[in-house]
Amino acid sequence: MTVSIQSVSSRDLRFELEGGAGSDAIHSEPQYSYAVTCLDTGKHQGTGLAFTLGGGNDWVCAAAEALAQPLVGRDIEEIMADFGPLMRKMADHHQLRWLGPHKGVIHLALASVTNACFDLWAKSRGVPLWRLLLDLSPEALLATLDLSYLEDALTAEDVLTLLRGQEPTRGEREGVIERGYPGYDTSVGWFHYPDEEVRRRAGEAVAAGFDALKLKVGSIEPERDVRRAALIRDTVGDDVRLMVDVNQQWTVPQAIDMCQRLAPMNPFWVEEPTHPDDVIGHRTLAQAISPIPLALGEHVPNRVLFKNYLQEKAAGFIQVDCVRVAGISEFLTVSLLARKFDIPVVPHVGDMGQIHQHLVLVNHIAMGHPEIFLEYIPHLRQHFRHPAEVSDGVYHTPQEPGASSDFTDAAWNQTQ
Amino acid sequence: MTVSIQSVSSRDLRFELEGGAGSDAIHSEPQYSYAVTCLDTGKHQGTGLAFTLGGGNDWVCAAAEALAQPLVGRDIEEIMADFGPLMRKMADHHQLRWLGPHKGVIHLALASVTNACFDLWAKSRGVPLWRLLLDLSPEALLATLDLSYLEDALTAEDVLTLLRGQEPTRGEREGVIERGYPGYDTSVGWFHYPDEEVRRRAGEAVAAGFDALKLKVGSIEPERDVRRAALIRDTVGDDVRLMVDVNQQWTVPQAIDMCQRLAPMNPFWVEEPTHPDDVIGHRTLAQAISPIPLALGEHVPNRVLFKNYLQEKAAGFIQVDCVRVAGISEFLTVSLLARKFDIPVVPHVGDMGQIHQHLVLVNHIAMGHPEIFLEYIPHLRQHFRHPAEVSDGVYHTPQEPGASSDFTDAAWNQTQ
Repeated sequence: MTVSIQSVSSRDLRFELEGGAGSDAIHSEPQYSYAVTCLDTGKHQGTGLAFTLGGGNDWVCAAAEALAQPLVGRDIEEIMADFGPLMRKMADHHQLRWLGPHKGVIHLALASVTNACFDLWAKSRGVPLWRLLLDLSPEALLATLDLSYLEDALTAEDVLTLLRGQEPTRGEREGVIERGYPGYDTSVGWFHYPDEEVRRRAGEAVAAGFDALKLKVGSIEPERDVRRAALIRDTVGDDVRLMVDVNQQWTVPQAIDMCQRLAPMNPFWVEEPTHPDDVIGHRTLAQAISPIPLALGEHVPNRVLFKNYLQEKAAGFIQVDCVRVAGISEFLTVSLLARKFDIPVVPHVGDMGQIHQHLVLVNHIAMGHPEIFLEYIPHLRQHFRHPAEVSDGVYHTPQEPGASSDFTDAAWNQTQ
Repeated sequence: MTVSIQSVSSRDLRFELEGGAGSDAIHSEPQYSYAVTCLDTGKHQGTGLAFTLGGGNDWVCAAAEALAQPLVGRDIEEIMADFGPLMRKMADHHQLRWLGPHKGVIHLALASVTNACFDLWAKSRGVPLWRLLLDLSPEALLATLDLSYLEDALTAEDVLTLLRGQEPTRGEREGVIERGYPGYDTSVGWFHYPDEEVRRRAGEAVAAGFDALKLKVGSIEPERDVRRAALIRDTVGDDVRLMVDVNQQWTVPQAIDMCQRLAPMNPFWVEEPTHPDDVIGHRTLAQAISPIPLALGEHVPNRVLFKNYLQEKAAGFIQVDCVRVAGISEFLTVSLLARKFDIPVVPHVGDMGQIHQHLVLVNHIAMGHPEIFLEYIPHLRQHFRHPAEVSDGVYHTPQEPGASSDFTDAAWNQTQ
């Protein structure tokens, strides 16, 4: 039975946050928003997300509708059997490509379109996204990827070799589906939270079962960062992982200095220390602060820049986000690339973990990435139809068909 | 006398091209377009350009209006006395920054806004842009720049030292204002032109006084590129410079192969061989095909990526474009950076050379960049109020106040 896409549309959803949530050193007044692509077959609706902070979300919606036009009238199985070349063609739009390429509004739009295709594919097969992806043959997974501009680092043959090489040991890693895996809590240390709120939330997070927490740093007064990191370390003890997130606020020389000051609090990683395009700056920094690893990817727009980061050994953790790069497809490509360079992937979750909770299972089981943890941001959970289930600090595997990207009726109609 | 900005508006101007003009290996149906920012003081109108290929030009206009809001009610002299920090603040817009940072639609928008400010500044002083910039003290020029994220490569002190160091010899270079400087002709070898048209146009260009020509390559059949390059070389002889432009169509391994095949035609440079974000790929290629130099910058979005290209010695010519990066200000920053690394700047001219004809004078006279040549694309000249004057292959210095960015009434009202 074929499932043809009858129409393409988009929706601009914006959600207010409360009391400083979501704030960081650069983004002071975020409005968590999704540029949503809808692919309607009559029977199913594929829902795709790209994440923004509000402003310009409408341009991403408009771009998604423009890029998705080639999908109309086509069968989803046929689309996904050859998705890599199709996605490349969409990215190479004869006029819109100029606005990138592979970055900014048009690439966020491609994320939204791509994610809608994968969601529709899983729904039409009646399985959750993780199940769909784990059941694909290496050849079928490869067909969903665009490896262009990676020829010097990851070829089609590399992908097949890597996936086939993991097949014999997959069984050993499948226990995670039943068991779940740890989340980490980003919501204890938003930038604008006062010290006492950070202390209270850190204590609550550990009591709730989390063993990894994140603090936003990058204050104008460096002492504030040091004080807040010490405060958390003091509250939670030495066994809890503490990550610090700079949100691009430092220069390279500043970052070297600040990492030395923060070293006594034993940061598990230093995230986004400086500009996300500055591969060479990160390389310098990574060498200077070793063994403290850098984590980055939230703002890295595409596989080409990730390739450069990996080639130069400038990142210790890759935080690729499927609502920033060109969706689930480019997320998988970057994960394969990272696997080849033996660097772990811990996604940034602009989707609040809804889609990534599927993808980390695929990374671990099919690619052999280490099981690590996944960021958890609960601020929008009431708006999702099937919100990620996290209890005792553990993500539980979703079972509903699709990519968990659907909203409640109230959120969809913005009546919440 | 103060000149306050009373209103900010934008205009979406799109122009059709004729018979394959503007076509390259990737951009098959361009519609040369400008997202124009207008700053109105009542007495003067500042006109700022960003260039696109049509689609999405309206999003750039909308973004420009949003970013320019802090300018309303302010005096242009006061704005320009501290433009660097102001531009940084505009780029750090609390929500729109997420759509970049410093790339794509929002950065094109910032180009348009910045260019409008410089145009208004020059008009309000009653001088052409090149005169305005050449008359600024090193400190005043520095104040227009945002050097953030360049701390490891170009500091404020570096800029002052560089500019002051050039002052004693400026007189020796000022003859170019009277004499003019050579243009090079991009319009002989558009991708979709048949061989005979390429041959005819190459002959005509040389007869018209040009001694440098560009050919678009990146054909599916490599033989086509080799044949067309040989055809031009055969038509124009050995003394004319021939540049080949790939428009990102090759992989790194392909580029190495093709540069060897094209070497007999002695290309002056190989332009945009592969993806514009791939610093490491270009570094590999530059080493492999030395001494043939790479030229790039048309799609490099910001100073941070240019810094990486320069740090890794991956470019032989920097083609920064002030209607792609954040306008005249970031163009000057990248030119200073390139000067420090001793790499020449030959701008890509999304503005058809209108603004860049001013800027190359500043690069040469104030920064000590070599006098080289400037791309010439005459396709839109009838639409500009003061089109660049090129005769006998030479650009003649514009004398009207401003940045030469104004359109004819017919073009402005799209009645042409």
